[in-house]
Amino acid sequence: MSHNTFGHLFRVTTWGESHGPRIGCVVDGVPPGIPLAEADIQHWMDRRKPGQSRFTTQRREPDAVTIVSGTFEGRTTGTPLAMIVENVDQRSKDYDDIAETYRPGHADYTYEVKYGVRDWRGSGRASARETAMRVAAGGVARKVLGEGVAIRAAVVQIGPHAIDRARWDWAETERNPFWCPDAETAKRWEGFLDGVRKQGSSAGAVIEVVASGVPAGLGAPIYGKLDAELAGAMMSINAVKAVEIGQGFALAAEPGESAADEMRMGNDGAVFLSNKAGGVLGGISTGQDVVVRFAVKPTSSILHERRTVDRQGRDTTVRVKGRHDPCVGIRAAPVGEAMMACVLADHLLRHRAQCG
Amino acid sequence: MSHNTFGHLFRVTTWGESHGPRIGCVVDGVPPGIPLAEADIQHWMDRRKPGQSRFTTQRREPDAVTIVSGTFEGRTTGTPLAMIVENVDQRSKDYDDIAETYRPGHADYTYEVKYGVRDWRGSGRASARETAMRVAAGGVARKVLGEGVAIRAAVVQIGPHAIDRARWDWAETERNPFWCPDAETAKRWEGFLDGVRKQGSSAGAVIEVVASGVPAGLGAPIYGKLDAELAGAMMSINAVKAVEIGQGFALAAEPGESAADEMRMGNDGAVFLSNKAGGVLGGISTGQDVVVRFAVKPTSSILHERRTVDRQGRDTTVRVKGRHDPCVGIRAAPVGEAMMACVLADHLLRHRAQCG
Amino acid sequence: MSHNTFGHLFRVTTWGESHGPRIGCVVDGVPPGIPLAEADIQHWMDRRKPGQSRFTTQRREPDAVTIVSGTFEGRTTGTPLAMIVENVDQRSKDYDDIAETYRPGHADYTYEVKYGVRDWRGSGRASARETAMRVAAGGVARKVLGEGVAIRAAVVQIGPHAIDRARWDWAETERNPFWCPDAETAKRWEGFLDGVRKQGSSAGAVIEVVASGVPAGLGAPIYGKLDAELAGAMMSINAVKAVEIGQGFALAAEPGESAADEMRMGNDGAVFLSNKAGGVLGGISTGQDVVVRFAVKPTSSILHERRTVDRQGRDTTVRVKGRHDPCVGIRAAPVGEAMMACVLADHLLRHRAQCG
Amino acid sequence: MSHNTFGHLFRVTTWGESHGPRIGCVVDGVPPGIPLAEADIQHWMDRRKPGQSRFTTQRREPDAVTIVSGTFEGRTTGTPLAMIVENVDQRSKDYDDIAETYRPGHADYTYEVKYGVRDWRGSGRASARETAMRVAAGGVARKVLGEGVAIRAAVVQIGPHAIDRARWDWAETERNPFWCPDAETAKRWEGFLDGVRKQGSSAGAVIEVVASGVPAGLGAPIYGKLDAELAGAMMSINAVKAVEIGQGFALAAEPGESAADEMRMGNDGAVFLSNKAGGVLGGISTGQDVVVRFAVKPTSSILHERRTVDRQGRDTTVRVKGRHDPCVGIRAAPVGEAMMACVLADHLLRHRAQCG
Repeated sequence: MSHNTFGHLFRVTTWGESHGPRIGCVVDGVPPGIPLAEADIQHWMDRRKPGQSRFTTQRREPDAVTIVSGTFEGRTTGTPLAMIVENVDQRSKDYDDIAETYRPGHADYTYEVKYGVRDWRGSGRASARETAMRVAAGGVARKVLGEGVAIRAAVVQIGPHAIDRARWDWAETERNPFWCPDAETAKRWEGFLDGVRKQGSSAGAVIEVVASGVPAGLGAPIYGKLDAELAGAMMSINAVKAVEIGQGFALAAEPGESAADEMRMGNDGAVFLSNKAGGVLGGISTGQDVVVRFAVKPTSSILHERRTVDRQGRDTTVRVKGRHDPCVGIRAAPVGEAMMACVLADHLLRHRAQCG
Repeated sequence: MSHNTFGHLFRVTTWGESHGPRIGCVVDGVPPGIPLAEADIQHWMDRRKPGQSRFTTQRREPDAVTIVSGTFEGRTTGTPLAMIVENVDQRSKDYDDIAETYRPGHADYTYEVKYGVRDWRGSGRASARETAMRVAAGGVARKVLGEGVAIRAAVVQIGPHAIDRARWDWAETERNPFWCPDAETAKRWEGFLDGVRKQGSSAGAVIEVVASGVPAGLGAPIYGKLDAELAGAMMSINAVKAVEIGQGFALAAEPGESAADEMRMGNDGAVFLSNKAGGVLGGISTGQDVVVRFAVKPTSSILHERRTVDRQGRDTTVRVKGRHDPCVGIRAAPVGEAMMACVLADHLLRHRAQCG
Repeated sequence: MSHNTFGHLFRVTTWGESHGPRIGCVVDGVPPGIPLAEADIQHWMDRRKPGQSRFTTQRREPDAVTIVSGTFEGRTTGTPLAMIVENVDQRSKDYDDIAETYRPGHADYTYEVKYGVRDWRGSGRASARETAMRVAAGGVARKVLGEGVAIRAAVVQIGPHAIDRARWDWAETERNPFWCPDAETAKRWEGFLDGVRKQGSSAGAVIEVVASGVPAGLGAPIYGKLDAELAGAMMSINAVKAVEIGQGFALAAEPGESAADEMRMGNDGAVFLSNKAGGVLGGISTGQDVVVRFAVKPTSSILHERRTVDRQGRDTTVRVKGRHDPCVGIRAAPVGEAMMACVLADHLLRHRAQCG
Repeated sequence: MSHNTFGHLFRVTTWGESHGPRIGCVVDGVPPGIPLAEADIQHWMDRRKPGQSRFTTQRREPDAVTIVSGTFEGRTTGTPLAMIVENVDQRSKDYDDIAETYRPGHADYTYEVKYGVRDWRGSGRASARETAMRVAAGGVARKVLGEGVAIRAAVVQIGPHAIDRARWDWAETERNPFWCPDAETAKRWEGFLDGVRKQGSSAGAVIEVVASGVPAGLGAPIYGKLDAELAGAMMSINAVKAVEIGQGFALAAEPGESAADEMRMGNDGAVFLSNKAGGVLGGISTGQDVVVRFAVKPTSSILHERRTVDRQGRDTTVRVKGRHDPCVGIRAAPVGEAMMACVLADHLLRHRAQCG
C-alpha cells in the first residue's frame, strides 16, 4: 500500500513538490528489452507542459525529462526506470499571501488538518505539477502497450459549452489549444475563456479519453475491474470530481432493451453493434474502444475575492494572484491519456501473469 | 495485488459463485476488542437480500450470515474475520439456455474470452450475488467507524425519473421498497416499474450515498485519494457505469467563483458554507458529509429478444428467463453503503497509522 | 498489505482458529483451465495431518478438504479458489489451565500484549493448525508449477542428531515417520524421541526443502529476491527460528575461490559444477535445485514445569498437558514444501507478467 | 507488489545502477512533523561508504545525500521523501572484461537469463551500491522509531574466525574497521584479511543486528510476522545466504525445557529470564532485544582464476580486477541495521493502525 504509487505490476511512484528543486518518478515492473529514449517520453511531456497558449498557466517550465536508471544501450533492462524533471520557474513569493490562509476549493485546509503542516509554496505536493510525472510514466506505458493500442483524449466541454459530437474530428484536436475535436466549438471556447480570464474567474471541463486497439480480456473481476481502476485513476487527477464509462450516467435512464450492446459475428469473430458499455463488460475489456469521460472542476485559485478562514482561525477573504490555468481541464487531457495508458499497461501484465 | 480483495489495512477478500454451495469473505486488519455478533451483520444483510418486494428478484435467499473465525467471547480478536452465507435457492436449470450463448450487456462473453471457461450457472462469479459479502464486510466496517459515522443511501433516479430533491426525507427511504427519499416519486416509480416488468424490460437507477460524521483528515494524496478510492469502490459494483463526488459533472459547467465552497469560522472550528465538493478536497475529507452518486445500468438479463452470438460463433438471439431484478439499482443501495463504509474504515486505519 | 495473506500474484489468505468450527483459505490468482479435484489437495493434506504416528499429536483430525468455489467441471476458472476444512476434534477443556497463564516460548503473552485479548483454546490463531491451509494452498501451487517441478522435504536433524548426508535416499523419507532420508538415523531418532516423550520434554528439528526442475530466471531483484521471499516464507511457519539457502551459514567460513559455483557448457546450455548457492544467484533462480533449510525450535507446550507469570501479574509455574507434538518439526516438513510451492508459483506468474 | 519496494506502510522504493549518474530512493508513509535534515541521514551514510579502510573497496564515493522532497522547514510533511546520491567515481572500463563473461557466484548469468539484457558496468542494479539507499531510508526509519529504540550491528565472524562473545563490548565496534565488538579478534581479522587480499581471495562474514527498546506487541501473525519480515529483509541484502533469530539453528538441538525463555514479574511488568527467542514470540515482539544474525558469503569478484562460460556459450575462465571489497560482510553491518530499522518502523505504523 502506498499513497504515492499507482498500479500493481506496472507501478508508478511519484515524488516532488511544485516548488522543490525537482520532481520525479520511478516506474517499476517494466518489461525488459523495450527500446526507450528520453525523446519518446519528451514527446508526451511537451503536450502537457505549461505556457503553450494564453489559456494555460504562464509558468515557464521546459519539463525536460531525464532517464536516470533502468535503460542500457537504449533499451529497458527490467529494473526500475527513474525519471527526473527540474523545476526551473518557481516563484514562491507569489504564494506569500496564502501561507496563512486556506483557499476555498483547494487542498490547503485538508492538508493542514491531516498533517499539521503543509508546503504552501505552489501548493507543494497538492499541485497539479505532480501530473507531469504521470505523463512521463504514461509514455513508458504506451511503449509497453505497443503501437497497436492508440490512446487519445479530447476536451468535450468547457464551462457550460459542450461540443457537437456530430462534428467530431480527431485531427482537429491537434489544431487548437484545447484538444477540441470540433473546430467550431473550439472557436467559441476561445472567446468564452478570454472572458473568463478577464473576469478573474475560471472554468471547468469534461475530457473524454478513448483507447483503441485494446485486446479483449484485459481487466479482472471483482475488485480489479478495468473500469473500476480507470475510475480510480481518473478521479486521482487533480480537480476531477466525476467519471463515467461509455454512456455512463445516461444509461440509468435507458430501457434494458436498448442499453446493452447487441452482438453479431464479423469477419474476425464477434462484433458489437454499439458501444454503450464503453468497451468494458463485467470489468473486462470487450475489444471495442475503451471510453472514459471525466469532469474537472474550475481552477480554485482565482482573482475573485472569496470568503475563507486563516490558520489562526479568523474569518478573512482571499484573492489568488500567481500564475494559474484559467481552465485546468485543458492540461488534464494529456494526463487522462497517461492514466489510461498506465491502467492498460498494468492490466496487460496482470492478464499475462494469470492467463499466459 | 489481488483481484478479489478490496482495501489496504481494512481488507476484504470475497469468494464464491452464484450457484456454488456457499459464498464467503475474509476481513483482515480489523482492530481487536470490538463487540461484534452475527446479528450486527445480519441487520445489514437483510436490507440487501432478494425477494423482499415484487421489484427485486424472486430468488429466495435468507442470506443468514455465520461468523466462523475472528471473534472470541463476542469481541473481535484482531485475527481474520471469516463469514459464510449458504446458497439455498439456486436453480441452475434456468440458465441452461444461456450456457452456449452470450447475453448482451453481460460478462458472459468477456469471461469466456479472458479465462477460456466460465461458470454459466447464475453467472458464477460475475453475479451480483457476490455483493452479499460486501454488505457483510460493510457491517464490520461500520463497527470500526463507530457510531459517530452514519452511512445512508438513497435511490435518486429510476429509469428517466429523478426525485425532487426539495422533498428529500431520509425517513422516507425506510418506508418504500426503493430506498426513495421522496414519497411522491416512490409512488410514481411503482407504476413505472410495474410497466417495465410487464414489458419484460428493465430499468437503470442512480444511487446517492452519504456519510455523515466523517472526521476531517481521512484520505491520502496522491493515488490514495479518498474520492479516487470511492470512485473505484463504487465502479466495482456490478452494473455501475458512472460515479461522481459532490456536484460531480455539474461542476464542469460552473464558474470558479461559485464552484468552490467558501469557509467561515463556526463554534467548533472552520465550517464550509456549501458542500459542492462532496466532503473531499485534495483527496482528503473536509469534515462535511461525504457524498457519492453512482449510476447503475438496466439489468442485462431481460425477456426481450436481443441479437447475439453463441460459443460456436453463430448469430443467434436470446431472451433471458430466470428470476432477475427488473431494476438492480434498488439492491445496489445497501451495497453502495457497504463500499462507503469499507473505504472509510480503511482510511481511518491508514490515517491512524501515519498521523497517529 | 495483509497479515494473513501470502504471495503477490498467487495469493493465499487463510482464516480460522484451532478450536473454531472450521478453518479455510482463499487462493486468488490461479490461472484458469487447470484440472483440479479435491483429491489432488487431499493427497498433500494427508501427509501433514496429525495422529499418524506416536511422534505427532494425538488430536484426530481427518483434515478432509472441500473446494467451495473457483472450479467448474473439474477445472480452475481463474476466480478465487476457496477451501474449507472442518475442525472435528477440539478439546478446549485441555486448555483451561492456560487461559490465565502464559506458556514460556509460546505466543500467549505477545498476543495478549498486542491485541488485549486472545483465544486461548488451542492457542486460537497462533496454533500450527493454520498450517493445514498452507498445505492445501501448496497443493494448488504444485498444479500451477506443473509436473516438471518436484518439491520434496526431508528432516535432516532432530534434537542434536543430524543425518549422515552420505546415506541420503529420498525414497527413505516415505518409509519412516520422520521424513528422514537416512534409514539408520531414522532408527536412532525413534529411540531418542521415545525418550523425549517419556521425559515430558520436546525436541527441535532441521528441515531441508529441495525444488527440482525450477526454470532459470524466477525471482526478482531487489526486494522480491527468490531467496528473500523463501526466507520470509519459511520463517513464517510456526516455531521456525532460522533459514538458510544452499550452504548458508557455512559459506561465511569459506574462501572466495571455493564459495562460488563454477560454470561449464553442458549439452543443453550452461551448467554449474556445484550448488553451494542453493540454486539462487542475485535473487534469481539458476536452474539448479533450489535448496532451503530451516530450524524448528522444540515444542513449547511440555509437561516439564516451567516458571512463568499469569494475566494478573503473579509469578507462577506451568505444565502443559493437552495433546502436543513432541517434535513439531516433523509435521513442518510438508508445510515447508507447501511454502516452497507457493513462493515458486507466485514467482512463475510474476516472471511471466514481466518477461512474457 | 513491487520488486524494488520494501515495506508496507513505511515504504522504501530504490532506483539506480552502480555506474549510472545517480541513485536514489523514495520513502513513502513517513509520519508528518518529524524533524529531519540531510545531516541526520549523512551520519549513517558515512558509516557504510566505501574507501574508509584498506579492507573495503577503494572506489571513492562521498555518498553525499540530498533530500529533494518531503520536508518543509526542517520537518517531514507526510508526503514522499525523495533522496538522491550522485555517483562520482565509476570506472566502467574496469568491467570491459566481464561484459561477455559470467562471473561465478555473481548475478551476471541469472540477470541475463531472466531479462535478456544486463548492465554489466559495475554490475548495474545487482551491485551492492544499491544498499546506500537502504541506509538512507534506515536513517529516516530511525527517526520514526524515535530515540527510545537503539539499533546496532556487530560483525561476529569473518572467514572461519568467530569472536569470543565473552569479550563483547559495543564501544569496541566503533574503534576498529570491522564493527567488531571484540578487540582481540579485530586484531586477528586484520592479519587474516591482509592475507586474503594478498592472495586475491575474499572472505565471508556473520553480522549480528540488535534492536533495543522495541516495545512489546510489534509484528503481526501469520504472514506478517516480525521475524519473517526480518528474515526476508536481511536475505534481500546482497550476498546474504542465511538468517537466524535469537539462538536460531542452535535451538534445534536444545531440549524443550531449556529452549523457551521463562518469565517472572519485574518492577515494570513481566520480564524474561533469557532471550533465546531473540525478542520475538509468535511473530510479535516481546519487549526484549530483537536479535538477528545473517551470513554474508565471500565477495564473488576475486583475482583468482575461475572456470566459467561466456555469452556466446563457450567455456572460458575469469579473473576479476576492478575495486572490490575483500570482505563485503563488513559494509553489510550498517545495511543490516538499516533493514532492521525499516522493518521496525513499518511494524510500528502497522501496529498503530490496527491497535491504536
